[in-house]
Amino acid sequence: MKVVKFGGSSLASGKQLEKVFNIVNADPERKIIVVSAPGKRFSADNKVTDLLIACAEKRILGEAADDLAEAVLDRYSQIADELELGLDIKDMIREDLFTRLSSDTDDPEVFMDLIKASGEDNNAKLVAAYFQQQGVEARYVNPKEAGLLVSPEPGNAQVLPEAYENLYSLREQDGIIIFPGFFGYSRDGQVFTFSRSGSDVTGSILAGAAKADLYENFTDVDAVYSVNPFIVESPKEIKELTYREMRELSYAGFTVLHDEALVPAFRAGIPVQIKNTNNPSAPGTRIVNERDNTNGPVIGIASDQGFCSIYVGKYLMNREVGFGRKLLTILEEYGLSYEHTPSGIDDISIILRENQFTNGVEEEILSRIQHELHADEVKIQHSLSLIMVVGEGMRQNIGTMARASKALAKAKVNMEMINQGSSEVSMMFGVQAVDEKRAVQALYNEFFAAAAVV
Amino acid sequence: MKVVKFGGSSLASGKQLEKVFNIVNADPERKIIVVSAPGKRFSADNKVTDLLIACAEKRILGEAADDLAEAVLDRYSQIADELELGLDIKDMIREDLFTRLSSDTDDPEVFMDLIKASGEDNNAKLVAAYFQQQGVEARYVNPKEAGLLVSPEPGNAQVLPEAYENLYSLREQDGIIIFPGFFGYSRDGQVFTFSRSGSDVTGSILAGAAKADLYENFTDVDAVYSVNPFIVESPKEIKELTYREMRELSYAGFTVLHDEALVPAFRAGIPVQIKNTNNPSAPGTRIVNERDNTNGPVIGIASDQGFCSIYVGKYLMNREVGFGRKLLTILEEYGLSYEHTPSGIDDISIILRENQFTNGVEEEILSRIQHELHADEVKIQHSLSLIMVVGEGMRQNIGTMARASKALAKAKVNMEMINQGSSEVSMMFGVQAVDEKRAVQALYNEFFAAAAVV
Repeated sequence: MKVVKFGGSSLASGKQLEKVFNIVNADPERKIIVVSAPGKRFSADNKVTDLLIACAEKRILGEAADDLAEAVLDRYSQIADELELGLDIKDMIREDLFTRLSSDTDDPEVFMDLIKASGEDNNAKLVAAYFQQQGVEARYVNPKEAGLLVSPEPGNAQVLPEAYENLYSLREQDGIIIFPGFFGYSRDGQVFTFSRSGSDVTGSILAGAAKADLYENFTDVDAVYSVNPFIVESPKEIKELTYREMRELSYAGFTVLHDEALVPAFRAGIPVQIKNTNNPSAPGTRIVNERDNTNGPVIGIASDQGFCSIYVGKYLMNREVGFGRKLLTILEEYGLSYEHTPSGIDDISIILRENQFTNGVEEEILSRIQHELHADEVKIQHSLSLIMVVGEGMRQNIGTMARASKALAKAKVNMEMINQGSSEVSMMFGVQAVDEKRAVQALYNEFFAAAAVV
Repeated sequence: MKVVKFGGSSLASGKQLEKVFNIVNADPERKIIVVSAPGKRFSADNKVTDLLIACAEKRILGEAADDLAEAVLDRYSQIADELELGLDIKDMIREDLFTRLSSDTDDPEVFMDLIKASGEDNNAKLVAAYFQQQGVEARYVNPKEAGLLVSPEPGNAQVLPEAYENLYSLREQDGIIIFPGFFGYSRDGQVFTFSRSGSDVTGSILAGAAKADLYENFTDVDAVYSVNPFIVESPKEIKELTYREMRELSYAGFTVLHDEALVPAFRAGIPVQIKNTNNPSAPGTRIVNERDNTNGPVIGIASDQGFCSIYVGKYLMNREVGFGRKLLTILEEYGLSYEHTPSGIDDISIILRENQFTNGVEEEILSRIQHELHADEVKIQHSLSLIMVVGEGMRQNIGTMARASKALAKAKVNMEMINQGSSEVSMMFGVQAVDEKRAVQALYNEFFAAAAVV
């Protein structure tokens, strides 16, 4: 039995829904179908979820939002019309949306979640109606009915343990289940949404709860690439990678599937297959617990911008018990999380995401470090990028760092930082943002392009 | 004007004192002479300081220590006899030592410092007597008379700021000044010794205070080597290195001169020349604030054993504000200082010296980390060595890491850790202790032996 999730672009039009139907129909194992809200049909298009957010924001300000609501309804109508579904489903969706919009806005965050969730919820009803029209035994299942219980945290709901028991019974029901992604219900019956990649989270929870054999995640790419295709043209596709590799790559900007969304499936030991709705015969990328290590040491290279480094120098720092702790305490008082702390004998650098600094906080923190820790020197370097070179094969391969650093040196990239030694499946390089693309290209050439020639 | 310090092996016998006299006499700039206690004449010999410590320990236990005191006095007598100095100086030293030994032992640490300091103090008197006998204008100067004021911390005295003003006048006195190393006086007139390399500290303070042009430090090697001669045979000598390089190298086991001893000279901007009493025509090694960078990226390689790594893994660690701080707080509660903390996304490793663990503390700490931080995995790796590759030239040299890691890979050394990015003049590798020598040899071959061929 498979749990299958379709993303927004896979459900953006009637034509896309036909593809989805054919995919589901082609494999009797595809039983639980998780749907997103309709996404973009073309790059300038609006996602239904974004329209809904704008809609909710207007209502929270006490303004009318009928125009935006109509724009949302128009998306569903166009799909229904394309598929010749008739008026019933359209009326049902209209009534649902306006009922939600007329509800209490006293708690704006709760109201926002209620409105946002309608995108997936109504789309699941629409998809179910279409499947039924096609003569398939399919039905919309509401998360409340199914027992998808979550914590009452708006925009950041966490699944509750008892939800897994409740959801197991889904696998024993007849026919195909169409399940809306992105949200669940609190114990007192209110809607709360997951954080980003919310429909992926729902699919992952259902796959884990229903003990699926596979969690298929349909999106609009053929596979996860070994490197960002905006940096390297037509990069190698990854056929199989481990959860660990996926996690390390996601950290630095791999966005096909956010790794945290996979945790419930990962914990239940269920493999994930990423596939393309628009090219379902492509094998896609499989995410597994363990893999054969036959593809060389490196499976992927990811990079992300927007980091900075706070350098703190103080003579005899390494003798001073508590220095590092005091430094981190200052950061913690500002709610800052940090990524890495490379250190010398008398100095330490803190690497963190620079978007965490709000007005003036940066100067304040530097000044506090200087004075409270009696540092000799405190300075900050902006505009750094982190590059992750990832692969389970690295563990057995003694020369990977030599190859990586040689490739970077040849490309005249200065390594501001190297972090290697804690994770066994990755090495991290800090470079200046202007060098990022050149560095990634050089690493790709070393580990992938050269190998292809052989 | 030069401040010149002679180490224990340079003053171990009458023959050695003749060399010292000739060295001082050869250069009229050599004005302030700092002396250690007599050191070893051969490898199984006792240092006078060690005899004095044993002597003090016996007295603290309330036992007689006359045999050990006589062994100390015998060393001075032999030197005096060799140099035909007569009875006066021998009597003076005998009286001084027994006066000290009969003093109050109520505060054992204070008593210990008083006894230890006699080694240098009486040797300075002896050297002064010898210089005078040779017809040179020279006199013993006591640190109390000269105003070398220190904090009242037994075995760890710190020089007080006003000492520098007091000591400046030494440069204006006539003749050669023979000054005992290793100790100063508290404001209330008690003797307190510096920590290790105490005579180097005294020389460094006098050089700084008297605004010397050069601080010459005479020991028993021709130069500082680029690598440990027990690992690489006849390694390259270092002609010139910066304080920063010296500090980084000292950290990992370079023992010719402890870097902390150099701080007063460093702060005053005075260069240090390390020279060999037994081969004074050898140019030695010069330690400076800045140097021309004409010798390739690496100036030295040092390594040290006895480290361990505590690995802590926890999913989503990098999102958890305060995780690192909590981890370091646990270590701090046990008074442990750590060296480095390489980190991945969901894991962090703490590198620390394993001799800090006393019975059972290791298990206790691992268990506390596991439970208090809700870690997924906590484990410890023992018997690690750290290797420092040091050089100011690294800053401009983009390919140094590539060369180093390639050399290590070729030597089949697995890098457990790389720490690079905070210090601009070093990179650090963590390897298993069994691989240390092979790693150092490989790095030496890459950065020194190969260059010699070119």
